Amino acid sequence: MERKEFRDLATPAEAHEAIRSLSLEAGIERVPLAEARGRVLVARMDAELDVPGFDRASLDGYALRAPDTFGADEADPATLELVGAVHAGEEPGVTVGTGEAVEISTGAVMPDGADAMVPVERTDEDGETVLVRTSVAPGDNVMFAGADVAAGERALGPGTRLTPREIGLLSALGIDEVPVRARPRVGIISTGDELVRPGGDLESARGEIYDVNSYTIAAGVEEAGGEAVVYPHAGDEQAEMERLLRQAADECDLVLSSGSTSASAVDVIYRVIEEQGELLLHGVSVKPGKPMLVGRLEGGSSNDPAGEASSGSVDGEGSSVAGGNSAYVGLPGYPVSAMMVFRTFVAPALREAAGLPEPETATRTGRLAREERSEQGRHRLVPVGITTDGDGSTLVYPVDKGSGATTSLAEADGVVEVDADTDYLEAGETVEVRLFSPDSRPPTLFGVGEDDPTMNRILDRLEHPRYLAIGSRPALRRLRDGVPDVAVVAGPLERTVDHVELGSWTREWGLIVPPGNPGDVQGVFDLLDRDLRFVNRTTDSGLRTSFDATLETTADRRGSSRRELASAIAGYDIGLRAHESPARRVIAGEADVALGLRETATHLGLEFVPIDEQSVRVLVAPDRTDKPGVSELESAVSQMNQ
Amino acid sequence: MERKEFRDLATPAEAHEAIRSLSLEAGIERVPLAEARGRVLVARMDAELDVPGFDRASLDGYALRAPDTFGADEADPATLELVGAVHAGEEPGVTVGTGEAVEISTGAVMPDGADAMVPVERTDEDGETVLVRTSVAPGDNVMFAGADVAAGERALGPGTRLTPREIGLLSALGIDEVPVRARPRVGIISTGDELVRPGGDLESARGEIYDVNSYTIAAGVEEAGGEAVVYPHAGDEQAEMERLLRQAADECDLVLSSGSTSASAVDVIYRVIEEQGELLLHGVSVKPGKPMLVGRLEGGSSNDPAGEASSGSVDGEGSSVAGGNSAYVGLPGYPVSAMMVFRTFVAPALREAAGLPEPETATRTGRLAREERSEQGRHRLVPVGITTDGDGSTLVYPVDKGSGATTSLAEADGVVEVDADTDYLEAGETVEVRLFSPDSRPPTLFGVGEDDPTMNRILDRLEHPRYLAIGSRPALRRLRDGVPDVAVVAGPLERTVDHVELGSWTREWGLIVPPGNPGDVQGVFDLLDRDLRFVNRTTDSGLRTSFDATLETTADRRGSSRRELASAIAGYDIGLRAHESPARRVIAGEADVALGLRETATHLGLEFVPIDEQSVRVLVAPDRTDKPGVSELESAVSQMNQ
Repeated sequence: MERKEFRDLATPAEAHEAIRSLSLEAGIERVPLAEARGRVLVARMDAELDVPGFDRASLDGYALRAPDTFGADEADPATLELVGAVHAGEEPGVTVGTGEAVEISTGAVMPDGADAMVPVERTDEDGETVLVRTSVAPGDNVMFAGADVAAGERALGPGTRLTPREIGLLSALGIDEVPVRARPRVGIISTGDELVRPGGDLESARGEIYDVNSYTIAAGVEEAGGEAVVYPHAGDEQAEMERLLRQAADECDLVLSSGSTSASAVDVIYRVIEEQGELLLHGVSVKPGKPMLVGRLEGGSSNDPAGEASSGSVDGEGSSVAGGNSAYVGLPGYPVSAMMVFRTFVAPALREAAGLPEPETATRTGRLAREERSEQGRHRLVPVGITTDGDGSTLVYPVDKGSGATTSLAEADGVVEVDADTDYLEAGETVEVRLFSPDSRPPTLFGVGEDDPTMNRILDRLEHPRYLAIGSRPALRRLRDGVPDVAVVAGPLERTVDHVELGSWTREWGLIVPPGNPGDVQGVFDLLDRDLRFVNRTTDSGLRTSFDATLETTADRRGSSRRELASAIAGYDIGLRAHESPARRVIAGEADVALGLRETATHLGLEFVPIDEQSVRVLVAPDRTDKPGVSELESAVSQMNQ
Repeated sequence: MERKEFRDLATPAEAHEAIRSLSLEAGIERVPLAEARGRVLVARMDAELDVPGFDRASLDGYALRAPDTFGADEADPATLELVGAVHAGEEPGVTVGTGEAVEISTGAVMPDGADAMVPVERTDEDGETVLVRTSVAPGDNVMFAGADVAAGERALGPGTRLTPREIGLLSALGIDEVPVRARPRVGIISTGDELVRPGGDLESARGEIYDVNSYTIAAGVEEAGGEAVVYPHAGDEQAEMERLLRQAADECDLVLSSGSTSASAVDVIYRVIEEQGELLLHGVSVKPGKPMLVGRLEGGSSNDPAGEASSGSVDGEGSSVAGGNSAYVGLPGYPVSAMMVFRTFVAPALREAAGLPEPETATRTGRLAREERSEQGRHRLVPVGITTDGDGSTLVYPVDKGSGATTSLAEADGVVEVDADTDYLEAGETVEVRLFSPDSRPPTLFGVGEDDPTMNRILDRLEHPRYLAIGSRPALRRLRDGVPDVAVVAGPLERTVDHVELGSWTREWGLIVPPGNPGDVQGVFDLLDRDLRFVNRTTDSGLRTSFDATLETTADRRGSSRRELASAIAGYDIGLRAHESPARRVIAGEADVALGLRETATHLGLEFVPIDEQSVRVLVAPDRTDKPGVSELESAVSQMNQ
């Protein structure tokens, strides 16, 4: 198969232009008023009736002829004859003549003959006559028909987003159904044999991982005003992928695929686009996102077994809303990259098609916490996190874990664009962050450090914390760099940084073994002298440094070196990141002994062989001590210790 | 029936406290991940598995033993034997020994024996051997199992709002259902015989009006994170109202009623609360909102014909989510008052129950455009509109049309609270507006003036205009007061204000008569000399002033006065607000001749008797000429004139 040649990568501006040139608009639909909140009107709504539709009493009181009250006051009331009553919701059965009054309730129709009303507070009544202790002018306390909204008036214009207030206006006009922009339908197709939909069974031995992008991009689509359609997972089987792609093109206004970077997936997409559409660009000079594909797909394939496509409309000019004609954009596979490309290139076009403005909270300006160097000559999308400093102003920090890490998701709040001509952003420079969600807000507390069960419980009590369990040493480094508020550290530390200690607690650590301790493990020497499979923690963990210190002492006693002892332990180099991970290997039968906490052993129903206690300390950056989230943490720590 | 006595009005703080004391929380529900966007987690989510679950190749290339590459470079590549291949999604069927390499694709499982990989770009392969032109260290280009997320790690905390990013994290962990706070169910009951649900038929002669509050408050409830249940309209029939109230108390966490100020409605509410609940307060010292009721209702009434209540659980301690126990708040009946009280007292409690923070855009700070005097001694909720001045900073202006006017809805964006001790807010003072909706934004253009069909078409082309058709004279007054950007005026003006004229067009006006002109009306003199029923426009309208000027001229010719001529016209004093309104009276057969525009006559299929032309001029406040919305208007006006 020959491929259309795209010798040069497109510029980001050309990519925006290509996506804008595709029609993502989904037409018009009529929705009941009760479901219209957040939707966008497509037509002007004029008042078809007067509001109120009749001359209406504004208060409870008496309807009368104003001239009959002229000159009346407290001292010299006018005396009128009571000739009837009108209540709200009934047609007046009486006419008001000179010298007469009619009892009337708020909202009731003014009877013929009356031209004003007096509130009940300024009157006395004995069943036959009404004493009026004030004078009124014609029209007083009456809302005339059409005074509020007059028939024929322009009420709401096209493009209006319907909030409760507009729903109120439409209600007043009696309108119970409104023409609004249909939400663009966006089909999401994930490919790749290794992907399993969340909730499914994972075979790690086969290299399977959960599909992150489908639901994530679907949520992004809905946030941008679209309607997401997640198609079944296609695997790498070409025929099935082709069938899904054609079906999605039939049914949607836009088809997004992610991770279709394998040669066979690209082949299918090329084939379908060549046969039934047009490829607008392949490859954009932006990192990440270089292999982005943008094109147009025509639906109506006879391959479609579901029969959604009307037969004979192969030219795609059907009458369906989706029109059998769909835009196509291929996104990167790595989740943060996919979100960045979606947010930068696709979401603005979707919002425009849906008629929605970008929410004011969708971008945030802040100060770059540390310098950022870029490869020259390439437009870059930099994933960043946001937090606040001691003064409450926004700090922006690049998140760089390698785009393969889904944990970047925990830390990245949005994207900063750096253009091809900029190779260096200074620390302190003001940057604009396009947030992944307008609902994103900076954490109330940003902590880094040990993975610790007590800390986890403390975090559960805080308002909106961000905590990265990266271990003690990286935590100190980050605290020094000025981004997080607190570092939670444990075990011997080689160095320290300026801090204020906010609180601490102790944890008991040792060796975790299967229930009943079948290997009869008594202490560290068993690891050295016997053939046991051990699992360690990472070198960044406080448990690991305490364990190494214990080995050091043992080595001193034995006249050996720590290094030598370590090499005698099978599995010493297997350093796992979370506090429960080694113990879970014991449960899985993959290890005999794990480094861990007494609490972990208890929690997982395993047996614990104590070695020592260590202190877990919460260190606060000196300029963050007054931050509300730090005070909240301080009281949570002290409550936890009670 | 005796009523619990509330001698003193409660303070606003006591009202907040009373509502907070009612439990609006709706418990926990489990939702599929695909529907979890915007929901709030109720429990901590820990990782139950390692991500990735296996040692994973980060690139396409070759898996090998790192020591085999030590010292290799472009000039002196290492030569390894190719022993197999592993693709993403398959279990490795091969082991890597010393001197061996295995082809591996991105995302595939590292085969046993290999501890690193080299990217394909740094290699050459001939099918049997692989030349490696670089040296790698153990672990290079490999993401180890659990390196991204380790089993047992805390992933998300309770109270986390789920945005696309969190949905990505949960997807990575394979979680497809999450425990979230259930949305508080809020029942909405509207009472009053005069109310008709939008879409129904209105009998104006009976004083019926459309029910504005039900859908408006429902939309507000949903915006605050609740689920709205709009109950059928109850009328004023006590038994039916009582039945609905009990049913709503059974089914909901909160019941809101509005406009239940009629004595009979209050009686029913009192009776139900006395029998099955507790009244916490009646009457709050706040304007509007004084008659606010706050209480607790217990469901489970045997009166409930729908049978939703389990029999025998009259004490309300059932096991249903709503618990048969509901909070109750009575809102004012006038729409803007109801919205203000809802927004001020109810929405914060609902958000708290739903676990949602107040959106950052839900309040807005601005400068008060004109002074505001308050009655002393009463806490006030002041409805305000927002707009921007020439510098783009926010201007806040009180909207005061009397609380009965639903058109306040078109202008009011939110509420400013003024406490009882403050009787005067100075112009220019900074105030905080609690917006009716976090989606509210200031209009891009704020215009006031003539109701004119050309202007309506121009407005349809603007981004987000606000236009109040209040007529020429009030428009000039408002322009002078510094709030709107433009005034659209027509007809003779007594005075003018500083302005820049942005553009103008002409409109032909005259008399509108039924098709075929059955009365053979030729001009103004027919009105004077014959017995015709006429309908006029309001004195604020430019058509009215031009018509009066014509009468003046005629009077001069006849040696009479305008006043005298006017009194000879039956219906001269019937001044209607919108440009189409008089013509619609002709259609309805209620008038023979209407003042109006040629365009209106054509549009409505009526006949037109021309009198004159008048110019409609768009006047801009001198400090607003640079506002983007004004430039947008200018080009729309000039396009309209082409």
